[in-house]
Amino acid sequence: MAAPSDTSELKGLIASGALDPREIVAVIGKTEGNGGANDFTRALATLSFALALEPHLGRAKEAIMSEIAFVWSGGTEGVLSPHATVFTRSNASTIPPASPRLALGLAMTRDIAPDEFGTPAHVILVADAVRQALADADIKDPADVHYVQVKGPLLTPAAIASAKAAGQALVTDDPNGSKPFARGAMALGVAVGLGEVQAEKVTPASIARDMNLYSKVASTSAGGELTKCEIILFGNSPSASSDYSIGHATLKDALDASAVGAAARSANAAVEDIVTVFAKAEASTMLRGRRTTMYSDADINYERHARAAVGAVIASVTGDPAIFLSGGTEHQCPPGEAPIAAIVRARS
Amino acid sequence: MAAPSDTSELKGLIASGALDPREIVAVIGKTEGNGGANDFTRALATLSFALALEPHLGRAKEAIMSEIAFVWSGGTEGVLSPHATVFTRSNASTIPPASPRLALGLAMTRDIAPDEFGTPAHVILVADAVRQALADADIKDPADVHYVQVKGPLLTPAAIASAKAAGQALVTDDPNGSKPFARGAMALGVAVGLGEVQAEKVTPASIARDMNLYSKVASTSAGGELTKCEIILFGNSPSASSDYSIGHATLKDALDASAVGAAARSANAAVEDIVTVFAKAEASTMLRGRRTTMYSDADINYERHARAAVGAVIASVTGDPAIFLSGGTEHQCPPGEAPIAAIVRARS
Amino acid sequence: MAAPSDTSELKGLIASGALDPREIVAVIGKTEGNGGANDFTRALATLSFALALEPHLGRAKEAIMSEIAFVWSGGTEGVLSPHATVFTRSNASTIPPASPRLALGLAMTRDIAPDEFGTPAHVILVADAVRQALADADIKDPADVHYVQVKGPLLTPAAIASAKAAGQALVTDDPNGSKPFARGAMALGVAVGLGEVQAEKVTPASIARDMNLYSKVASTSAGGELTKCEIILFGNSPSASSDYSIGHATLKDALDASAVGAAARSANAAVEDIVTVFAKAEASTMLRGRRTTMYSDADINYERHARAAVGAVIASVTGDPAIFLSGGTEHQCPPGEAPIAAIVRARS
Amino acid sequence: MAAPSDTSELKGLIASGALDPREIVAVIGKTEGNGGANDFTRALATLSFALALEPHLGRAKEAIMSEIAFVWSGGTEGVLSPHATVFTRSNASTIPPASPRLALGLAMTRDIAPDEFGTPAHVILVADAVRQALADADIKDPADVHYVQVKGPLLTPAAIASAKAAGQALVTDDPNGSKPFARGAMALGVAVGLGEVQAEKVTPASIARDMNLYSKVASTSAGGELTKCEIILFGNSPSASSDYSIGHATLKDALDASAVGAAARSANAAVEDIVTVFAKAEASTMLRGRRTTMYSDADINYERHARAAVGAVIASVTGDPAIFLSGGTEHQCPPGEAPIAAIVRARS
Repeated sequence: MAAPSDTSELKGLIASGALDPREIVAVIGKTEGNGGANDFTRALATLSFALALEPHLGRAKEAIMSEIAFVWSGGTEGVLSPHATVFTRSNASTIPPASPRLALGLAMTRDIAPDEFGTPAHVILVADAVRQALADADIKDPADVHYVQVKGPLLTPAAIASAKAAGQALVTDDPNGSKPFARGAMALGVAVGLGEVQAEKVTPASIARDMNLYSKVASTSAGGELTKCEIILFGNSPSASSDYSIGHATLKDALDASAVGAAARSANAAVEDIVTVFAKAEASTMLRGRRTTMYSDADINYERHARAAVGAVIASVTGDPAIFLSGGTEHQCPPGEAPIAAIVRARS
Repeated sequence: MAAPSDTSELKGLIASGALDPREIVAVIGKTEGNGGANDFTRALATLSFALALEPHLGRAKEAIMSEIAFVWSGGTEGVLSPHATVFTRSNASTIPPASPRLALGLAMTRDIAPDEFGTPAHVILVADAVRQALADADIKDPADVHYVQVKGPLLTPAAIASAKAAGQALVTDDPNGSKPFARGAMALGVAVGLGEVQAEKVTPASIARDMNLYSKVASTSAGGELTKCEIILFGNSPSASSDYSIGHATLKDALDASAVGAAARSANAAVEDIVTVFAKAEASTMLRGRRTTMYSDADINYERHARAAVGAVIASVTGDPAIFLSGGTEHQCPPGEAPIAAIVRARS
Repeated sequence: MAAPSDTSELKGLIASGALDPREIVAVIGKTEGNGGANDFTRALATLSFALALEPHLGRAKEAIMSEIAFVWSGGTEGVLSPHATVFTRSNASTIPPASPRLALGLAMTRDIAPDEFGTPAHVILVADAVRQALADADIKDPADVHYVQVKGPLLTPAAIASAKAAGQALVTDDPNGSKPFARGAMALGVAVGLGEVQAEKVTPASIARDMNLYSKVASTSAGGELTKCEIILFGNSPSASSDYSIGHATLKDALDASAVGAAARSANAAVEDIVTVFAKAEASTMLRGRRTTMYSDADINYERHARAAVGAVIASVTGDPAIFLSGGTEHQCPPGEAPIAAIVRARS
Repeated sequence: MAAPSDTSELKGLIASGALDPREIVAVIGKTEGNGGANDFTRALATLSFALALEPHLGRAKEAIMSEIAFVWSGGTEGVLSPHATVFTRSNASTIPPASPRLALGLAMTRDIAPDEFGTPAHVILVADAVRQALADADIKDPADVHYVQVKGPLLTPAAIASAKAAGQALVTDDPNGSKPFARGAMALGVAVGLGEVQAEKVTPASIARDMNLYSKVASTSAGGELTKCEIILFGNSPSASSDYSIGHATLKDALDASAVGAAARSANAAVEDIVTVFAKAEASTMLRGRRTTMYSDADINYERHARAAVGAVIASVTGDPAIFLSGGTEHQCPPGEAPIAAIVRARS
């Protein structure tokens, strides 16, 4: 993408027949904003994609934005390249190949109430939706799930004010402080939904605090414009006939280049088969015994330092700077580590 | 270093006897500033190191600052770690080992006149000093030289004003615009001094413009506070008895992790033998066919993006974020590439 | 505006009948981007306004964007507030009031050819269009003109490449370096069109260089997406029946609070009558004998420092942080100064 | 100052005899850093000033740094100019002038224990030291005090760890989160010491929370390198014979230019008599009914936006950009407002 509003390649794929716009279910990409509260590149990209699809889908942009899952992460630090990966789903009656292939499952919770936000109730709602997404993807074994992208609401100033007026207790009264609770509750919802964590272990005190409870395939993000949690589940299904499959691994730290190959191997493939990577970048104050300055830098946010570093490490292995890399890993991996998933061209 | 003023590890090495302060000839390191015109962390580090050495050397800080070569690069983006590498030279009458070992050669030009600045005369003065440094290091074959750090003057506003008042022609009237000429003329001086480029090929029109003329071992930086060019030449000498040797290679682009191993092999060693790395980071608008946003980002300077990325790639190979990495590669490598040198623990 | 995409107040004015969308001729505002090459808030605001007007105008957004002049300046540093001022023009047969009132004149040049760009030909094309805008506003005396907003093209990389392939000479081969030529040629076009500068004084060597040639009412900006120069001329016309009139003055430096009152007085009004202000902010290295750090700061662009300061000074006089304030004053005022215009509620 | 290390003007004043270095008691100034955790310009300035004074005072820099109060605020946004104001005190037996004149009082608390930090005990220790400073300045009436600069410790990670190991309760376990408690407890200490707030109103729950308790003359800052609270009290004393006096006022918001004149009048002088200004800048999300973007900007810290704006407003009144302006106003003024003090040339 030459800019967040650039849809020329999308239009080209549609014009050439390579992409059937009616089959699009999700768009996941990076935009060149700062990734912060005043990053409007994500909104511009969503609006531009919806407008580009309007003439093809015969529906208004508002309907398109609610039907297709748009997930953008702002911030293309270092070598990272602005791009979008468009996911389609077709009901082609092809005979499934010998090995399980990439399948997507979509689901959505109902609205999360302010007094549910960041509590076990929030976790359970996400877990239920994850199970629906599993069924939607026709995946029986949760071990075949390799990446679950969830986006959901924050506590907005307005929601906080009305909840307090109604005498409701909230996990925090600070809109910014609600981010870890949002990401954390959704990640634990994935973990519970996939059986990685038992539901009864999730107590009010553990959410966003006890980082020894985690999923290994969740990637969660939160935004004030949302009211429900949207799940896009990626796994390998025996009934799928895609040319791709997916695997995952864990980055032990920001320098763990070996995790890229591990993610490919987890999909029964090699580094050269990778077509796209989803990962999270985690900042740290110490790295392999050395002090870093990510957290003490008042000019550049620590998430930007982390994305620049981890993005370059991954791209140095795959050769491709078009990586989906975002920040905030609460309950999405063991403490200090970060999740990585790779979609590969299937070998058999 | 816990801060640019932190000399506690230096003092510890001296107190333990591991380091004889009288043998220090150069200090090369990274500080946690922004690397720009308002980066005062370099000045603070030099002042702090000189003050820490005062009681040991029995000389005033001003004398110490002029006798020891202090080279700091500001900017520890991504994983890069603030640190200093202290180089010593002793006349120990040890029997030299079988293989050539790390030797340093030091030399200095006279003051560069404003009307010489950025011209072939500037190049020749540096080339002469490089030859002196070769002799100082007792290196006969220029092929044994792997890294030549040169720092020298910029055209300051004051120098420009007085030169114009005297009717002298300058290569540029813009202090900031004098940086490429400074770095370029010094790099070509290294190239001529080591025989990589023939002196007669260096014309006024080629400096900072014809990037097909280059050294492969130069690393140059410029500062308004200097009047002479200072050379620190690193190579392997048969008469040296250091435990270390040095090699170099070229980063083909910002993702070229293989260059780290190539630099080690050039020193007859392997990646695990590397003790420290010197490299340059080069920004680009396209990388392996993908657009990057380093140059279009108005919030973060492109050199900071490049250092964050290249630093992480190198550290992902060596496991050590304490890398000396700076920007600006004019005439220091083939266009689009970047130099890298590695000091290794010698194997034999 | 709560965000660059926020059109709720525009919609409210239309819904209430306070604003007839068919009468809108121009929108001038500030958005909360960084004001640099990667500021996409301007594009998002234009797109959002055009989409908001689509159902009211019965035309597609592309037509609306070409018919209505959208002028956004990115960067709301310090106290500056994101906002839009919407200008309408109606042919109401009201009896004109006793005093001349605010009138707008619109005009456009043809495409500027690359080899015309930044040359006297560019200036003449703008001057001709300014004269058309004068007629369009029904203003006879150029002294009644107080603000001329012009936006026009830059030399894009593509235009430079094709011009060079065709053997054409350009004023610069650097896209970024073409900004001063763009702003300068358009400002001189205003000066020539209004008789402030004689056409024969504009030589190829004077554009973007001889700052003693200037308009006192021009405000120009350039963007790579444009091919023509668009003029929005603001003045007082005896045939206008607006409730407003306009005046202008000059900020002698960034601290010149007195210029705000001078601009109001120039419109026969007082500070308390001001409804909106258009101004430019100019950075400097010295101010009233003191050194500033605007230009040496590598973290924050000098234009952002200047806008933060000048915006606060103006707002401290008017009490209103919703000011249109942008940067780059070439040929738009005497060297070191900056233009300011004020629209006031007319007293008689 | 041309840089944080520039002491040339200090040396010039000493060389000319205008300044007796033995009489220096305090240095208060601005440096051109970012004002954040990685701003090392303050340390460089203190070190440089102490080194410049060494030969004149015949004592080591460490002694000088502990005897003279150095107060630096990093961040010269907008028009603000890097500078230092040097305060001297002499026991000259001059006959005091008719009106009270500027007098300084200095005092220091003992070390603040971690479990006292941010509690009423902290407040009482500062209040006691403020009373000592009053006596030191020979000021009987607290109404004659116009500015009390206090700097003191933060809770460091080390202090937090050892206090927790000892089972002590702390007001916060977050080093960064200790800033408001530090500034707040010191400001309330000033308020109690001067009788602005009754000691019994200061409860554990009120510190850094109940902003209706405040001093109107306190200016407090905190740093991890300190263990005690240092007080520099400025007021007018009948026994002083300085050429200057001091007054103060309150900025109602970031645009309140009238406060500058009010501060001068409070010293029985006019704006043109002002020689230096001390003030605080307070960011806000709304200003005179308009939204600002200071807090939502992820690229530039809100304190930098606020300093750029308020500094320009004050300088537009005094004509002098060399203003001491810092951030963080807890308990130092009514909520939403900010303190300002002006030293003036005394008229009678």
